[in-house]
Amino acid sequence: MKDDVLYHFNLGTSSHNLPAMFGDVKFVCVAGSPLRMKEFNEYIAGVLGLEDPDSNYPNICEGTDRYAMYKVGPVLSVSHGIGVPSTSIMLHELIKLLHHARCTDVTVIRIGTSGGIGLEPGTVVVTKQAVDAQFMPRFEQVILGKTVVRSTNLDHGLAEELLRCGEEMNQFDTVIGNTMCAMDFYEGQARLDGAFCFYTEKDKQEYLAKASEAGVRNIEMESTVFAAMCELSGLRAAVVCVTILDRLKGDQVNSSNEVLHNYMQRPQILVGHLIKKQLSVSGKP
Amino acid sequence: MKDDVLYHFNLGTSSHNLPAMFGDVKFVCVAGSPLRMKEFNEYIAGVLGLEDPDSNYPNICEGTDRYAMYKVGPVLSVSHGIGVPSTSIMLHELIKLLHHARCTDVTVIRIGTSGGIGLEPGTVVVTKQAVDAQFMPRFEQVILGKTVVRSTNLDHGLAEELLRCGEEMNQFDTVIGNTMCAMDFYEGQARLDGAFCFYTEKDKQEYLAKASEAGVRNIEMESTVFAAMCELSGLRAAVVCVTILDRLKGDQVNSSNEVLHNYMQRPQILVGHLIKKQLSVSGKP
Repeated sequence: MKDDVLYHFNLGTSSHNLPAMFGDVKFVCVAGSPLRMKEFNEYIAGVLGLEDPDSNYPNICEGTDRYAMYKVGPVLSVSHGIGVPSTSIMLHELIKLLHHARCTDVTVIRIGTSGGIGLEPGTVVVTKQAVDAQFMPRFEQVILGKTVVRSTNLDHGLAEELLRCGEEMNQFDTVIGNTMCAMDFYEGQARLDGAFCFYTEKDKQEYLAKASEAGVRNIEMESTVFAAMCELSGLRAAVVCVTILDRLKGDQVNSSNEVLHNYMQRPQILVGHLIKKQLSVSGKP
Repeated sequence: MKDDVLYHFNLGTSSHNLPAMFGDVKFVCVAGSPLRMKEFNEYIAGVLGLEDPDSNYPNICEGTDRYAMYKVGPVLSVSHGIGVPSTSIMLHELIKLLHHARCTDVTVIRIGTSGGIGLEPGTVVVTKQAVDAQFMPRFEQVILGKTVVRSTNLDHGLAEELLRCGEEMNQFDTVIGNTMCAMDFYEGQARLDGAFCFYTEKDKQEYLAKASEAGVRNIEMESTVFAAMCELSGLRAAVVCVTILDRLKGDQVNSSNEVLHNYMQRPQILVGHLIKKQLSVSGKP
């Protein structure tokens, strides 16, 4: 391919000098919300002592509102929207971007929110294995009309290192466990409060109990495709999500915005600690 | 439920007077991009002669960046992000919102972009039937660990009325056909230009030829869940997407931003014409 247009990023190999823009990237952090990525970029700039005195961090994907992208030093932050399809587009274009920019030795970490199973809200879960809604460690997708199954392994060493960071910091509970990836927030996660619901509280509790038996500690909507695509591309990857409610006790997210914002910062703080530590070891920045 | 928090809209039954805010809604238009919904809201305000002299149309979902929502007169515009899971969350909360607001006789229309099959770019496709990546008129989802299959019927009368509007206006080609809903933009749509690809140009062309034989005229990423959820809720629904390239001839979206923007306005113009016509018949506004 002579020219490669990364359509959803509004970037391309002929319109942008991708090696110059991204060649030094060593960490990519991704999350659903564009605003949370903007905040994380500013946070990590502070952690690494790379603050811009004017706080001028442009959205690199300006010109499209599909995804937002920020960069400070060796850390790139990209939003992926909600759910597997939205995340898969971002990852296809991110992996192509890292390839075109000739990046090496890149770690990708998803920082997100999730519903916990039997955990105090605010607990941070580092994913051991991403599983689907039948608790299997696989990502199924239809390609050319046929179902293709991919494995969803994450980097065990990286997960353990994140857990150690949590212990060192000792600011909030950090646990390791399986993460279930659902295709919907309501029926796909056994919620009773969607626009329609054809099962009972008892059915819900039985399903969540089975999830718990399978080692599932939290439920979100992107981990399987994230794990599968990073594994297939040889990228070291981890998933770090805070739980914003305990699904055994309810379905509605009704904590105050202040409480939720505090929770949402926890994966950022944990990953910031890890990045600073790993860059110190490698002598950069 | 005493209180219902529509979490991803940042709205709720105890924090907002939903009947006062939304009780008069008769049309809901949805599209992926928040910016396109803002534009459509301003466009439809002009079409209906309801312009605010200050052009002051606040985002009703301010306080969250998950979805954006605008309203002018009886027309509500809501973004749904990319893909089935993101769209399902928006629809669950939209259907609850319409219920809480005691809206009646509501029509919901998705206006979007798509890849065409054998159509001149810029052609508008009104969906006859939403089909999955195996060309079946169904939406499959996993609920409590079991696969549930739902039908994806849209309102035939509304589709025919949209086609008639296209003929009356005669500004661009408008056709009716089946729309395939894919779970990914790259491998899920048989593109060769993703981060990885394990099939050939010949495999791709064979798959697209089969889609064409099944009556598929265009491919997008939301139509099956949109059709299934609207049908289940008794909402009159239609899907109107413009094709931004001919997939038989390529995979990359490399038209200029001006050309793309012109294409993207076409579903808006068609649906604006329909809404004006239907409101004139009913004597409002």
